[in-house]
Amino acid sequence: MEMKVIDGGVCAAKGFKASGLYCGIKNNPTKKNDIALIASDTICNAAGVYTQNKVKGAPVIVTKRNLEKTGGKAIAVIVNSKNANTCNADGEEKAEKMCSLTAGALGIKPEEVIVASTGVIGQILPIEPVVEAVPKLKAALSYDGNEQAAIAIMTTDTVKKEYAVEFTLDGKVCHIGGMAKGSGMIHPNMATTLNFITSDVAISSEMVKKALSEIVKVTYNCLSIDGDQSTNDTCVLMANGLAGNAEIKSEGAEYDIFKSALYEVMANLTKMLAKDGEGATKLLTCVCSGASDIDKAIVVAKSVIRSPLFKCAMFGEDANWGRILCAIGYAEADFDITKVSVDILSKNGKIHVCENGAGVEFSEQVAKEVLSADEITIDINLYEGSSSATAWGCDLTYDYVKINGDYRT
Amino acid sequence: MEMKVIDGGVCAAKGFKASGLYCGIKNNPTKKNDIALIASDTICNAAGVYTQNKVKGAPVIVTKRNLEKTGGKAIAVIVNSKNANTCNADGEEKAEKMCSLTAGALGIKPEEVIVASTGVIGQILPIEPVVEAVPKLKAALSYDGNEQAAIAIMTTDTVKKEYAVEFTLDGKVCHIGGMAKGSGMIHPNMATTLNFITSDVAISSEMVKKALSEIVKVTYNCLSIDGDQSTNDTCVLMANGLAGNAEIKSEGAEYDIFKSALYEVMANLTKMLAKDGEGATKLLTCVCSGASDIDKAIVVAKSVIRSPLFKCAMFGEDANWGRILCAIGYAEADFDITKVSVDILSKNGKIHVCENGAGVEFSEQVAKEVLSADEITIDINLYEGSSSATAWGCDLTYDYVKINGDYRT
Repeated sequence: MEMKVIDGGVCAAKGFKASGLYCGIKNNPTKKNDIALIASDTICNAAGVYTQNKVKGAPVIVTKRNLEKTGGKAIAVIVNSKNANTCNADGEEKAEKMCSLTAGALGIKPEEVIVASTGVIGQILPIEPVVEAVPKLKAALSYDGNEQAAIAIMTTDTVKKEYAVEFTLDGKVCHIGGMAKGSGMIHPNMATTLNFITSDVAISSEMVKKALSEIVKVTYNCLSIDGDQSTNDTCVLMANGLAGNAEIKSEGAEYDIFKSALYEVMANLTKMLAKDGEGATKLLTCVCSGASDIDKAIVVAKSVIRSPLFKCAMFGEDANWGRILCAIGYAEADFDITKVSVDILSKNGKIHVCENGAGVEFSEQVAKEVLSADEITIDINLYEGSSSATAWGCDLTYDYVKINGDYRT
Repeated sequence: MEMKVIDGGVCAAKGFKASGLYCGIKNNPTKKNDIALIASDTICNAAGVYTQNKVKGAPVIVTKRNLEKTGGKAIAVIVNSKNANTCNADGEEKAEKMCSLTAGALGIKPEEVIVASTGVIGQILPIEPVVEAVPKLKAALSYDGNEQAAIAIMTTDTVKKEYAVEFTLDGKVCHIGGMAKGSGMIHPNMATTLNFITSDVAISSEMVKKALSEIVKVTYNCLSIDGDQSTNDTCVLMANGLAGNAEIKSEGAEYDIFKSALYEVMANLTKMLAKDGEGATKLLTCVCSGASDIDKAIVVAKSVIRSPLFKCAMFGEDANWGRILCAIGYAEADFDITKVSVDILSKNGKIHVCENGAGVEFSEQVAKEVLSADEITIDINLYEGSSSATAWGCDLTYDYVKINGDYRT
């Protein structure tokens, strides 16, 4: 399957417009965008996955309800940053209002709008800025508005996150693109953070839902920045069918192509989220192979990627492989620890640090070289089967503490 | 029940001697003690609880085996710091050697010795320093050697941890005392770190085991520094019966007195471990009350105490209560989040930040005052029952990152 990485983010797929602007939800002297709109020219088959936190942001509740009401259809997304609209008595009312304002401006039904918010928890969302912003967002909608939208959803993110691919399916040129925001309170137990994926592929609501949950499992759910699970995590996939392929209604070769492209987009957004984790200086990738099944491989890879001690060691460029083995050991999965091998690698080389569950000698000089890179891979082999999985994360640094010691004020 | 806090640590109970010295397991210019011996004048009923990590330090395996061999009897403890003797091909052999050396010096059986190690994982334990140290430790044994022993088990601990109480049981003056070491790689899923508790109470092996596991559940297991579970966690309780009370063989009033005293010692050691968590500037205590059962209360209190974002907020003295509610929300327990209330308090005052799962207004001025204290309590009420539990932890600081970015080298 040929796939080309292209520009365009959420506007890469045919018929998707976007816009973003500053409306002043939180007073911000830099006037950085804080609200975005995405709209499809035609109705989309859509699905979402959400946080499993009992404390759910009001927008999560409203979006879920809307997608249920429409039976998996949506046309637009309205999303703000700087305020999570969570733990507020009037939260749902405000989230509904965001939908009805958007629906009014676009001439669609409120339940055809997906709403999302991210930012501080427990502060009342001021609705006036949103009321004023929606007509402006509508006016600003364009087929290359993806960048303004991607900027608008950033919170402590230092860079915007967009990714898109072009591929062929049923003889038609197709696209999947997306945008995402991080970058703290990220823990793999559902779609993490805010992610909006758009596509022009024709595919049924049911298969959109299936593909999204299958790919979320091996991408966003394999990401950990800090082990905290947000209240507002939402990942939405919308497909409007404008590519003109015959609608995908069941599993098979074309569904597999769609899934591969979706994986490409979501895995790359996941890596961007990991690399831009709060305070991060290094992207850490943990590959667990040789597992008897994929779930076991995921559990082991995630256990390592979230260990604070391992993360600190990577920040300190210290080849403290004992901490890796320790985190493998407390992974809640059944395997024989005395078979496990571990390698640490980067573009600068590779060290083999553990074999049969015990340490092996390695050159501290080479270790230093390997760990000085800004992307490090930990390669674990359980030697008991042929399944593998990848998890992504970042190092734990002074800046993570700094950013989160004074986020609210 | 009257209970008096006394000096003496592991030597507070009748018939327990201890010693500690520097033997040079890892070259250390400060020559800080790195090996300790505890010995009872008579054989003890003893029990241990250990890490649940699949990667177990060799001493954990040997201690467990010894206590099984003897049917819960022990006379001495040999313990070193600076090297965990974990993930080494010759680990068990070395741990056995530590037991036989100690047994030889004391004229007891090797299986009557409890062995423990703490420090770096995956480096071969040099046995020569231990061979030389054991006769010296034996010679130095004294009824007030507790402090030298407590110093010897410290790794990144900044202070030694000892606690002891005196109380009356069956008309006899009785004692329980202990020592512990922290201070990173601590996560509540078993007895955490190394803890040695001694008592002169007469109590059967079976009841020693029962009391230890009951109290571990509500003390050490409610402690989290960083979410990493060590490979060498060991908590041992030894009781030699020299107080002269009628042996406790079943539940009842005297068992309850013993348990209360044990709780007092272990809860205070737990608080010391939390307060001296790596890089910590604040002791955090989270009390969850109003739960329908104690397990639920424990899960909720622990979920908050281990949240990195909450820990950073406390370091930054930021009353970001949304993060507390978020961590309550992802606790794996079933309750109604819309009933939950949260207070934050310290010696400087109290703020009521959340009611019925939603934020309430509070004075930022008072919040600042409350959070400037070095001991902060988070008070959560689930309003659904009468069970409660306490968890202990500390803030996440620059120094945690610093200490762990360069621990091995």
